[in-house]
Amino acid sequence: MTTVEPTTSYPLSSRNRVKRRHDRGFYDHATVHKLLDASMLCHVSYVIDGQPYCTPTFFWREGKTLYWHGSSASRMLKNQSADQRVCLTVAHLDSLVLARCGFNHSADYRAVMAFGSAYLVTDPDEKERALVAMVDRFFPDRTASLRQSTTQEIKATSVIAMEIEEASAKIRSKGVADDDEDYELPIYAERIPVRTVLGAPEPCPRLRDGVERPASLHGYSEGRLLEDALADAYFLQYPGS
Amino acid sequence: MTTVEPTTSYPLSSRNRVKRRHDRGFYDHATVHKLLDASMLCHVSYVIDGQPYCTPTFFWREGKTLYWHGSSASRMLKNQSADQRVCLTVAHLDSLVLARCGFNHSADYRAVMAFGSAYLVTDPDEKERALVAMVDRFFPDRTASLRQSTTQEIKATSVIAMEIEEASAKIRSKGVADDDEDYELPIYAERIPVRTVLGAPEPCPRLRDGVERPASLHGYSEGRLLEDALADAYFLQYPGS
Repeated sequence: MTTVEPTTSYPLSSRNRVKRRHDRGFYDHATVHKLLDASMLCHVSYVIDGQPYCTPTFFWREGKTLYWHGSSASRMLKNQSADQRVCLTVAHLDSLVLARCGFNHSADYRAVMAFGSAYLVTDPDEKERALVAMVDRFFPDRTASLRQSTTQEIKATSVIAMEIEEASAKIRSKGVADDDEDYELPIYAERIPVRTVLGAPEPCPRLRDGVERPASLHGYSEGRLLEDALADAYFLQYPGS
Repeated sequence: MTTVEPTTSYPLSSRNRVKRRHDRGFYDHATVHKLLDASMLCHVSYVIDGQPYCTPTFFWREGKTLYWHGSSASRMLKNQSADQRVCLTVAHLDSLVLARCGFNHSADYRAVMAFGSAYLVTDPDEKERALVAMVDRFFPDRTASLRQSTTQEIKATSVIAMEIEEASAKIRSKGVADDDEDYELPIYAERIPVRTVLGAPEPCPRLRDGVERPASLHGYSEGRLLEDALADAYFLQYPGS
């Protein structure tokens, strides 16, 4: 009996191969997915009449499928029955790197570029499921406590999906890296960490008496890294991923 | 004698007009430039053979020109003598908004999309000037204290520029905004602020004895918002802007 090795990396092509500083490139599912699942904000690029657009929006992952909602759907997918080529990018900025020469100034970062064809989720059941996931992926089980969506609201929201055909992660995490001889120079160099953190939650001033913050939101606490809260929430909602 | 009103807004077109939630759209130079100048990281979208790419990179503004450096230049502008259509986007995430129904879940954010044609800066003097600005825009006057760039280093770096033809800012800052009747429901709602802050600077462990952190870096101090440090640095370097 032969077993088939599961494919654990995205295939390499001229599109996703990290060309410059290829030592920083990763293609395995684990690295790519971990970065995606620690993110909320992505930038989606698409083309209309030869003009590229780059739209920031929220997204989430299920398996090798990325979903986002349609702030730009009207423009992006209007009058397009065919699939639309897309690049979805996520970037975490981790530090500013001040070196001893201009050329070695840099940053520590973690970024993912994912390529595929986008399509509107039109099946009603699948769309309703995705609209629940769009909230619960970030705030586990929250939808169950909310006022139900109206037909009108579901109609007014577009859900867009894309199977990841190719993806790459690019990571730099080494701080100051100067040319050997430059370390002898009397020049100041440093790494300045950058972190995206949560502030103290601000309850809506119009809460009804006795309505408390649910325990499911405890991961979103003051001072936490946004990416840690997102990764924890993701694991709660998709424990198998 | 007639005076010509200075143009203080970017022109509107089908490209930059904010279609969805147009109440959140701004086109005046002051709003657009302020958001750009409080940013370091942008996402640049461009098209090769019909496939869009979305590359995160650092950028800065001078007047109505945006500059970035060529981490993707080899792919983006290789073999292209003609201009390349580009969309450069900047997004600040300010909060997560948890409402009383799924549809009103949202975020507070400030984003800019800028459209134009990108070109390589090839004139040697202009390129050298831009390479200085690439460091000094973020860290005022730093280049003067650095080891001079070598011919090789200058050759290895691409500077790309784009005149902004059209741009729009999109801003949401109202926190929880539920439907009137939903405020009566016993459902928890809140705004979670998100901030990108600086950590404590980490001096290079290989500094020469007696080399101190220069006063010009004092704006980059622990706990500060990255965007405040960047806006201050920008004002120091381009006081007239």
